[in-house]
Amino acid sequence: MSRNADKLRLFVECGLVAGACVTIDRAQAHYLGHVMRRGIGDPLLVFNGRDGEWRARVDALGKGGGALIVHEATRAQSRDSDLWVLFAPVKRTPIDRIAREATTLGASRLAPVLTRHTVARRINTARLRANAREAAEQCGRLSVPEVANPVSLTAAFEAWPAERRLLVADETGAGRAIADVLIALGREDPVPPSAILTGPEGGFEAGELDALGDLPFVIRVRLGPRILRAETAVLSALACWQALIGDWREEGAAAGGR
Amino acid sequence: MSRNADKLRLFVECGLVAGACVTIDRAQAHYLGHVMRRGIGDPLLVFNGRDGEWRARVDALGKGGGALIVHEATRAQSRDSDLWVLFAPVKRTPIDRIAREATTLGASRLAPVLTRHTVARRINTARLRANAREAAEQCGRLSVPEVANPVSLTAAFEAWPAERRLLVADETGAGRAIADVLIALGREDPVPPSAILTGPEGGFEAGELDALGDLPFVIRVRLGPRILRAETAVLSALACWQALIGDWREEGAAAGGR
Repeated sequence: MSRNADKLRLFVECGLVAGACVTIDRAQAHYLGHVMRRGIGDPLLVFNGRDGEWRARVDALGKGGGALIVHEATRAQSRDSDLWVLFAPVKRTPIDRIAREATTLGASRLAPVLTRHTVARRINTARLRANAREAAEQCGRLSVPEVANPVSLTAAFEAWPAERRLLVADETGAGRAIADVLIALGREDPVPPSAILTGPEGGFEAGELDALGDLPFVIRVRLGPRILRAETAVLSALACWQALIGDWREEGAAAGGR
Repeated sequence: MSRNADKLRLFVECGLVAGACVTIDRAQAHYLGHVMRRGIGDPLLVFNGRDGEWRARVDALGKGGGALIVHEATRAQSRDSDLWVLFAPVKRTPIDRIAREATTLGASRLAPVLTRHTVARRINTARLRANAREAAEQCGRLSVPEVANPVSLTAAFEAWPAERRLLVADETGAGRAIADVLIALGREDPVPPSAILTGPEGGFEAGELDALGDLPFVIRVRLGPRILRAETAVLSALACWQALIGDWREEGAAAGGR
């Protein structure tokens, strides 16, 4: 969707200042040299989630890793949306999509939660993290969302911050229309931090939905009259959140200097 | 996302009345017998886009086709959202996703349009139609969206109905925030019919965006500061449309009697 899709961006761990030498690991060196066909002296952009985005050049590139030299800042670090996504894991392809697209849609934390109907119980968190990092690199974000380790639905709420509202996508259709809920949240001062929870392919168990509804920070929302796949529900709720109370309403330069 | 995902639904072409015998084709018979493991006497739901949803039973099932007997109506035909989606075709997996999810998100017409940067120019319209039909069966819709044959960007607007607003996802970030545009449309009386247009992976050409902006029915919208994949842009815009001025705000029973 961008004419700057060819702008190569890399997430790195080290601090970024002018003149810094940044080492990259084996996987990133392979990506740079073999997938993206870059060599010594080629330019790219780097970010680390703290110091904004910088122009850099490839200084060394080998089988075991490489090094970049940092030149000048291109964008200052921006504030992320404070938006958590809790989702019942689904199969490999859709869960990868959730990790990638929730990143692109600006979620700050991705947390797999195991519900009673959750079939996919073996979650490769490292793969989710890699997907999130790659999506951040490609979508122009200056940060990579945190990917939490999977926990049970009940454990997820044991140390829940009271002020954070949890919008539960209620597939029984019993909740409030999501637009109405988001517009009401947007009128609170300050706008409370949010989280979105979506269920597994089989839906929540009735008892789970009832227990969720009893939590003081939960708002049950509905996403229309049709049955959405788990990943479509996640992405739809995120898009509505960003459009109504997130950064889609803010003016300003788009990612990657578009 | 639904505990009724096991409810088998089939789109058929014939008229539906109590007692009618409905023939199904080879592919549907294979799906019923081999994929879903149903046999003579097993119940299912049928719809044809005109006569609502009906309970039926398998009456005959063979290699070349089969027959169903229609029993009683379960839902009356509902009015569809009047929402067209125009999209630059992308590769096979994402274009199949667009067809499936635009159906689930209630689009009434899917139209591939060829822009200058469109790489994927060979479009299998029959496969898109099959994806849309399957998605309609699974999401509880009572209709299957029309899938148009691909046309060029300019041809798409030659006979454009003047009252239909076209929201163009402008990846340069120059458009208005989509929520503001949708809220404004929702205040018009009557609410005008809409269409959404998203570009290819490489984005629209600058000249294309300028020409689009000159069309009297076009509203350029932005979908936030991050670079969205083509299919993420389609789904995000659709979800926002349904949430703000579509059927996600309507009260009432959800699909499949959830």
